[in-house]
Amino acid sequence: MDIRIKSGFFMAIFMLNVSNRSNPMITITRPTLLLNEKQCKINIQRMVDKANRLNVQLVPHFKTHQSSEIGEWFRAFGIGSITVSSVKMAEFFARSGWSNITVAFPFNMHEIPAVNKMLEQHVNLTLFVVNTEVVQRLNEELTAPVNLFIEMDAGYGRSGVATEDIAKVKELVALIEAGSMTNLYGLYCHPGNTYHTNSVEEIKGIWAGVIKKMLAVKTALGVAGESLKIRVGDTPGCALVEEMEGVDEIGPGNFVFYDLVMNYLDVCAESDIAVVMACPVVAKNENRNEIIIHGGAVHFSKDHLFAANEEKFFGEVVVLEEEGWSPIVEGIKLVSLSQEHGVLRASAEVFEAIEIGDVLGILPIHSCLTANLMKSYTTLNGQEIKHLESF
Amino acid sequence: MDIRIKSGFFMAIFMLNVSNRSNPMITITRPTLLLNEKQCKINIQRMVDKANRLNVQLVPHFKTHQSSEIGEWFRAFGIGSITVSSVKMAEFFARSGWSNITVAFPFNMHEIPAVNKMLEQHVNLTLFVVNTEVVQRLNEELTAPVNLFIEMDAGYGRSGVATEDIAKVKELVALIEAGSMTNLYGLYCHPGNTYHTNSVEEIKGIWAGVIKKMLAVKTALGVAGESLKIRVGDTPGCALVEEMEGVDEIGPGNFVFYDLVMNYLDVCAESDIAVVMACPVVAKNENRNEIIIHGGAVHFSKDHLFAANEEKFFGEVVVLEEEGWSPIVEGIKLVSLSQEHGVLRASAEVFEAIEIGDVLGILPIHSCLTANLMKSYTTLNGQEIKHLESF
Repeated sequence: MDIRIKSGFFMAIFMLNVSNRSNPMITITRPTLLLNEKQCKINIQRMVDKANRLNVQLVPHFKTHQSSEIGEWFRAFGIGSITVSSVKMAEFFARSGWSNITVAFPFNMHEIPAVNKMLEQHVNLTLFVVNTEVVQRLNEELTAPVNLFIEMDAGYGRSGVATEDIAKVKELVALIEAGSMTNLYGLYCHPGNTYHTNSVEEIKGIWAGVIKKMLAVKTALGVAGESLKIRVGDTPGCALVEEMEGVDEIGPGNFVFYDLVMNYLDVCAESDIAVVMACPVVAKNENRNEIIIHGGAVHFSKDHLFAANEEKFFGEVVVLEEEGWSPIVEGIKLVSLSQEHGVLRASAEVFEAIEIGDVLGILPIHSCLTANLMKSYTTLNGQEIKHLESF
Repeated sequence: MDIRIKSGFFMAIFMLNVSNRSNPMITITRPTLLLNEKQCKINIQRMVDKANRLNVQLVPHFKTHQSSEIGEWFRAFGIGSITVSSVKMAEFFARSGWSNITVAFPFNMHEIPAVNKMLEQHVNLTLFVVNTEVVQRLNEELTAPVNLFIEMDAGYGRSGVATEDIAKVKELVALIEAGSMTNLYGLYCHPGNTYHTNSVEEIKGIWAGVIKKMLAVKTALGVAGESLKIRVGDTPGCALVEEMEGVDEIGPGNFVFYDLVMNYLDVCAESDIAVVMACPVVAKNENRNEIIIHGGAVHFSKDHLFAANEEKFFGEVVVLEEEGWSPIVEGIKLVSLSQEHGVLRASAEVFEAIEIGDVLGILPIHSCLTANLMKSYTTLNGQEIKHLESF
């Protein structure tokens, strides 16, 4: 049966059935996170090239893939410094041989003993501070120096010192410079508001504002500000913005896989998405044109988007193929999730085309959370790639 | 500083600070899932007692705790048969010595080889079927017999054969009885619509309807229906309903820990909740009365509830104490989550009382998903209890 796919073409729906005939390299029996290694490396290469072209240093965030092996793919592109989101993740990547690690999270003072252990093992750590208490504590209890970013908030409104609050920045700068264990490295901003935009222009506008505000802080700091590095961290901006004058470093993470959120923001093409969940079809309900897959909240997480009809959805369906997967299939969406169940609602046409025992591909809404739950990847040639342990 | 707690009393807020002085048994440095073992055992005992009193068999669902050790607490109460939500989870609990396991999920035919392996190891398995294709396949490929529940849908609308569709039930019954590898065991219903109710009476009403419909199916099956067991599986109903005439078995899971959803449904008291996340405070934002904790979507999942003011929230705050935790603190809620960050918004009074470095308790919205992400529990005397590997 032919069904319409999003690209506007018609193609025969070619399911991975019980014998998984469409990809002889993989036998899928359970929810499995497939990784298109080739696309993933293209995504890495593209960001590396862009950083080179714009003369900024790429310090990629590893919270999305959390995998030593995928980390090595970055190393092959000359990446030597990485970003993580917790001290625990820093410990993992330090064990995987990374020695320049930024922990991009307001530093938790209870982690000082763990930081001291890594410092003993000659890991160069760059931490985030947003308050004086933590700077004081670091200087009292660290056994070796660390670099510090002052995290700045240029309008996102999550964490960080407001870029307008020059007095607080100055107080922090003075304290950091006076301390023997804290080296002032730079100013960091994660403009997460780029995730809540309606157009590419809006993302570019947010970045222009961020750069202007960060440079104003640097200027306000006078001599102390001159040597400070400015790093900005979100995937939407890092992927789209071409005007980075004033920015020294970028720290995006999600671009390694991308996902439906990034596609809906027009930050990536649908074909840039490098991961897909493979989920077996276990039941069909003719009365409601609903299809039950094994694939629920413990596999996808509960992030969602809203379709044109305002209906919440948790993933889009693709057809698994030997060298990847098809464009998004129109007329079907993952409309609800419980712990292990996923419910797809389909048009009559698409419903008919899908059989119990088929293995469907589901593009994830938020690849970071899906990867964090799945804890391993299967490449298209059947190789298993381990995700680090749970955080 | 004194702050109002939900119970209406005033009490001094007594934080677990850097020295964790309120509980000398535990040093918390990172997001940690605390388990009140005593309360958990009370929750188990209460459900065991209820099942005995109402003369139904309790076949608890282990998807919530996913722990061999907590499984043993059930065994101590005489529990011999358990429920899980995937074949993978069945494999784990079979390795932990359980030999009567129901897999409460529409059976995925790709799992037949895994089922055959467990059958070889003399695990008695009870599976769910909702369609004839799967029954046929089981009879063709199983190497030893299994018991089957026909999953029924009495109005929830997720999976299962509609209780009105007697023709389909009869077709399944005939096929199961004709097969040499499939024993018809009973009719199962998970009325998950009890999770979306506004009153205890509504939950009781749903159950009364479920029982009536399930008994009607049994009656319609004539002789074939007489020996069929009826099992019903949701925690709200199993906890609240006293009229279970006609039900043979119950299979709730969440009651082992409960959570804010169950408390909001009036299914449990707030003090019945047996797990709490301990999260360090890493930053405070005076301009917005917001507090940043280490504790995000990778710890809690993204399930949420809506407060009286219609605002979405992801958890409630309690004060950690030596033998548990305080009632919910009024005037503060976990209002947003990103991957590792949690943002609490507080009244001026509560904001002042909380310091950077404090460790706050956060009651989870949905304990099943939080436990699934955290992968281990710490009891109040500092013992670590392992959760099974990721599913």
